[in-house]
Amino acid sequence: MTLSLSQTVPKFRAACERVRRDGQRLGLVPTMGALHAGHRSLIEEARRRADQVFVTIFVNPTQFGPTEDLEAYPRDLEGDLTRCSEAGVAHVFAPAVSEMYPEDECTRVRVVGLTQHLCGASRPGHFEGVATIVVKLFAIVGECVAVFGRKDYQQLKVVERLTRDLNLPVEVVGHSTVRDEDGLALSSRNAHLSSEERDAARAIPLALSRAVRQFRSGERGVGALVRPVTQQLAGAGLRIDYVSVADPERLTPFDDDAATSDTALLAVAAKVGDTRLIDNVVLGEDPPPIADA
Amino acid sequence: MTLSLSQTVPKFRAACERVRRDGQRLGLVPTMGALHAGHRSLIEEARRRADQVFVTIFVNPTQFGPTEDLEAYPRDLEGDLTRCSEAGVAHVFAPAVSEMYPEDECTRVRVVGLTQHLCGASRPGHFEGVATIVVKLFAIVGECVAVFGRKDYQQLKVVERLTRDLNLPVEVVGHSTVRDEDGLALSSRNAHLSSEERDAARAIPLALSRAVRQFRSGERGVGALVRPVTQQLAGAGLRIDYVSVADPERLTPFDDDAATSDTALLAVAAKVGDTRLIDNVVLGEDPPPIADA
Repeated sequence: MTLSLSQTVPKFRAACERVRRDGQRLGLVPTMGALHAGHRSLIEEARRRADQVFVTIFVNPTQFGPTEDLEAYPRDLEGDLTRCSEAGVAHVFAPAVSEMYPEDECTRVRVVGLTQHLCGASRPGHFEGVATIVVKLFAIVGECVAVFGRKDYQQLKVVERLTRDLNLPVEVVGHSTVRDEDGLALSSRNAHLSSEERDAARAIPLALSRAVRQFRSGERGVGALVRPVTQQLAGAGLRIDYVSVADPERLTPFDDDAATSDTALLAVAAKVGDTRLIDNVVLGEDPPPIADA
Repeated sequence: MTLSLSQTVPKFRAACERVRRDGQRLGLVPTMGALHAGHRSLIEEARRRADQVFVTIFVNPTQFGPTEDLEAYPRDLEGDLTRCSEAGVAHVFAPAVSEMYPEDECTRVRVVGLTQHLCGASRPGHFEGVATIVVKLFAIVGECVAVFGRKDYQQLKVVERLTRDLNLPVEVVGHSTVRDEDGLALSSRNAHLSSEERDAARAIPLALSRAVRQFRSGERGVGALVRPVTQQLAGAGLRIDYVSVADPERLTPFDDDAATSDTALLAVAAKVGDTRLIDNVVLGEDPPPIADA
């Protein structure tokens, strides 16, 4: 299959319409590029669910705060196109910022209920940027199945909710986090880690794995699940943004002295050096990130 | 032609898809019901531009402020269906509030730049409600031409902008305000006016007509255009919310001591008794609302 590329909204829309006119189902994988094996896994999931897979590559400025790493975010369009081609992607949409945000553009989408806590609390405006770009992309594409990674769990829930709330004709699918051999969740930002930082980051999947086992052994106390995670991350020299146990649908954190429900999201965000990493497991559902830890 | 009715999102979506599957162009007229000759004119405009016209009837709660007239807003579904049938409408979508706003619904759309002034300033949240419901409707309908009245000029601009910004596959068309014989712009809210209030309300088209003539005679001073309007409305006992001359695209009001551009929006909002009325003319473009005034 040959890979085609579009960089303007009308051309991308026309490419999407051709797929549907041929009676085929369109699979969409929205990304910020710097594609890795996690994205490859999203593409494969989309290929299982659709006839043709389209990937969007756009480092969305509105989801970065003023002090965040927009400029430093890894970019590699040439490499990404090769990876897409190898993965059997039919079309890549890689617009310029001015194509998605023309000068007098001023429309914003926000999902009120799900963005108060976790990354929503520490990254003001982040999910408004995410929601806005996702609606823009979904409105161009139209009917499709769109695959998002569960590493960005809150983002997945935000996208699910806005799709349902706004009646967008998109089936949103969440796909399991892909991890390196040492358990670290794949992320384009991992490219920023020095080898020492990379070693330190391993505390995240280790701590999540321990919590999964505690939960399996019957532990339901929020504090008892959170404390060892906090200790392990701090002990490895990570600067913790949050370690939260939350309702897996509403994303409201449980109080420290409460007991969790039968499934509960355990989500963490922490900085290793200058690099902010996030990870999560749904306790009662997901296996431990490191099988033998 | 037979009129059909849907009240759920999936049924409405299916009706819209049938039109496109038949290779026909869909015309959409979103309304809050209590249809009058102004709506009829929107429907006729849509019929000129499309093969089948669908009307939505939904009194959208999120665009009413807590002290506004949501409860009192006129409702007449039975009469509206008759009027739609007579006007050659093919399908009416009249959902319940819970269909458009399910319990845990929490997504909102706002158009930042165009909603600071005019009705946006005096009705906080109004245009967020408008933008949200319009995106919900457009996302169900998909590709279509949608017709909106120019009486709600700021609303029309907000809808044009969000449609372009979010890449929605909708052609938005603004249609001239329809007026009663005495020049009063048709509005469902006119039903609330007593005959005395109705007489008083005529000051609005009279004042706008005078301003159009002043402008045609070369007057470009904002204060000189605004003052007689204010005086005429106040003289008729109306309680003025705003009388503004603004840029017709950006909707930024000109200062009182400035000169207008070659076309300028003159917009007014005023209460007659308990009923808030709005009206506008684009100076340099629109004829006077009352030809012989």
